[in-house]
Amino acid sequence: MERGLAPYSRGASFLNGVNEFELIARLKPNLPTNQSVVEGAGDDCAVLDLGVPDRFVLFKTDAVVEGIHFDADAEASAVGHKALARCLSDIAAMGGQPTAALVTLGLPQKFDPEWIEKLYAGMGTLARRYDVAIAGGETTTTQDRTFISIALIGTVGKKHCVRRSGARTGDAIFVTGELGGSLRGRHLDFEPRVTEGQWLAQNFEIHSMIDVSDGLAGDLRHLLTPNQCGAELLSDAIPISRAAKLQAREESSSKPPLLAALTDGEDFELLFTIASKDAVPLLDGWKKEFSKLKLSCIGKIVGAPGLKLWDKQGCKELTFGGYTHFGRSGRG
Amino acid sequence: MERGLAPYSRGASFLNGVNEFELIARLKPNLPTNQSVVEGAGDDCAVLDLGVPDRFVLFKTDAVVEGIHFDADAEASAVGHKALARCLSDIAAMGGQPTAALVTLGLPQKFDPEWIEKLYAGMGTLARRYDVAIAGGETTTTQDRTFISIALIGTVGKKHCVRRSGARTGDAIFVTGELGGSLRGRHLDFEPRVTEGQWLAQNFEIHSMIDVSDGLAGDLRHLLTPNQCGAELLSDAIPISRAAKLQAREESSSKPPLLAALTDGEDFELLFTIASKDAVPLLDGWKKEFSKLKLSCIGKIVGAPGLKLWDKQGCKELTFGGYTHFGRSGRG
Repeated sequence: MERGLAPYSRGASFLNGVNEFELIARLKPNLPTNQSVVEGAGDDCAVLDLGVPDRFVLFKTDAVVEGIHFDADAEASAVGHKALARCLSDIAAMGGQPTAALVTLGLPQKFDPEWIEKLYAGMGTLARRYDVAIAGGETTTTQDRTFISIALIGTVGKKHCVRRSGARTGDAIFVTGELGGSLRGRHLDFEPRVTEGQWLAQNFEIHSMIDVSDGLAGDLRHLLTPNQCGAELLSDAIPISRAAKLQAREESSSKPPLLAALTDGEDFELLFTIASKDAVPLLDGWKKEFSKLKLSCIGKIVGAPGLKLWDKQGCKELTFGGYTHFGRSGRG
Repeated sequence: MERGLAPYSRGASFLNGVNEFELIARLKPNLPTNQSVVEGAGDDCAVLDLGVPDRFVLFKTDAVVEGIHFDADAEASAVGHKALARCLSDIAAMGGQPTAALVTLGLPQKFDPEWIEKLYAGMGTLARRYDVAIAGGETTTTQDRTFISIALIGTVGKKHCVRRSGARTGDAIFVTGELGGSLRGRHLDFEPRVTEGQWLAQNFEIHSMIDVSDGLAGDLRHLLTPNQCGAELLSDAIPISRAAKLQAREESSSKPPLLAALTDGEDFELLFTIASKDAVPLLDGWKKEFSKLKLSCIGKIVGAPGLKLWDKQGCKELTFGGYTHFGRSGRG
């Protein structure tokens, strides 16, 4: 169990009134581009056209840092698993097939070789499961904390590449698995939904998709803002993990389970939208293909911007962080 | 001027008698691979066949860390330049064309937004010069020191892809530019030899090539070991930078200039071998194409393993680090 971590320290860094996300948003319009770039900063992966017939190349990096994404006493193999799985999850969210990874290790002067061997073992086991090569990388010396940065290349059929930006009014919103309470352990051993993402993209017209890394409410925003639409969620339909429920029961200071499911983050499930007419065929097909993994229809896309939650008492407005109007007192 | 840095802390990290390079060597044979991998860990870039007609995809990551690769007070734009240029240099060393980069920034809780804007400006200027897109990336929070990790994709014509491993007995050894003393400033503003690398690969049969990052003597080893051959260098032919000469004159404790040229590192010049019959046509062509950049024939590949240096006194054995037999007293 990993407690006290802050796996997504959004808005935590401020100086001169600028947080890091605002800064990156300010930098993005000035980034150099070229003809190869189909989709640059702003989706799960960068999408490149390098001339592979009928396929795009997907390109992603992701870093985990000791003390932020994992504790110093975390199992090394689990840290390796997590570092690679986070990147695989982004490829999955575009319907892609991961191909090859490079590993950048930042190591303190005194490192434990056995820890690193286990780290690589954890990465290797996961990589083999999805036929991903670890094609090299580098080590560099840090002053103190270990970090692992993974760069990953994948590919996806051009007509099966699912962006974040295609959500349409009337779409049904689906999410795989269960949400919340990931810091109780799952954030270290989650299974990236690579197979499921490919199956979805190849068998259905998925309008938009993202992996849930910052929390359902926060990541849903990324599907809504491109087309300035909104979403209505059904509180009873949101799949809450056993960990989130246990946490609420065992720790009086913890979030109510529904709030945990909406905001905890590090779930790495797939969140996507699809025309409502396809919802039933999708659920039927899913049950046959992935009988052990839950798929939940949790709401719909609406024209009016914003995020609403329906429960027995009626309709509540949510912020995308889930906090302001839906605090500890709002147990659903 | 950047002093007191340790840009390549090889062998510095030990625990349980294992240094990081030995460890990585031990891990390599067990890394997962797949059909896409043409060349994995061990060359300047990973080489992948993703199905682009007639071309390989090159894949590289490189990280720079505050306090190791740059001082906290270094110009931010120069740090951005250096971070990207190091990766471009690796693409250059295979004769490739860089295409798209992702930038991973590790930032302390209190970061200076202006510093980061300048960092990106430095990267952007260099990227535009070589038509490289910056297609996204991520920021993560570190406890203390800033790091910048660049992941870079490029491509190269299959028949023009130059590896480290093709050196043959009798080859002439060439190096571009001048070597040594890079820490006096050049390590922050060097020009990656992208244009030169492509021209070499497309116009001549280059047998093997590498960029000089760890020092001429050290990097030459990477061209020799694959075929268990050796090299004889001519001390008068080794191009010594003005910075290395100045340094030796101004600082009594510094290395002799020739030793600096052999071992300083961070030169990012191209070191390559070519059949001796092609040496004169190469020099002629080079003068027409790159009149402002020196190209020096510094020796030849020989059958017997090891590294030898000829000067007026005769022949000396060198270690690849240049230190053991060629110390401060061995002024050539």
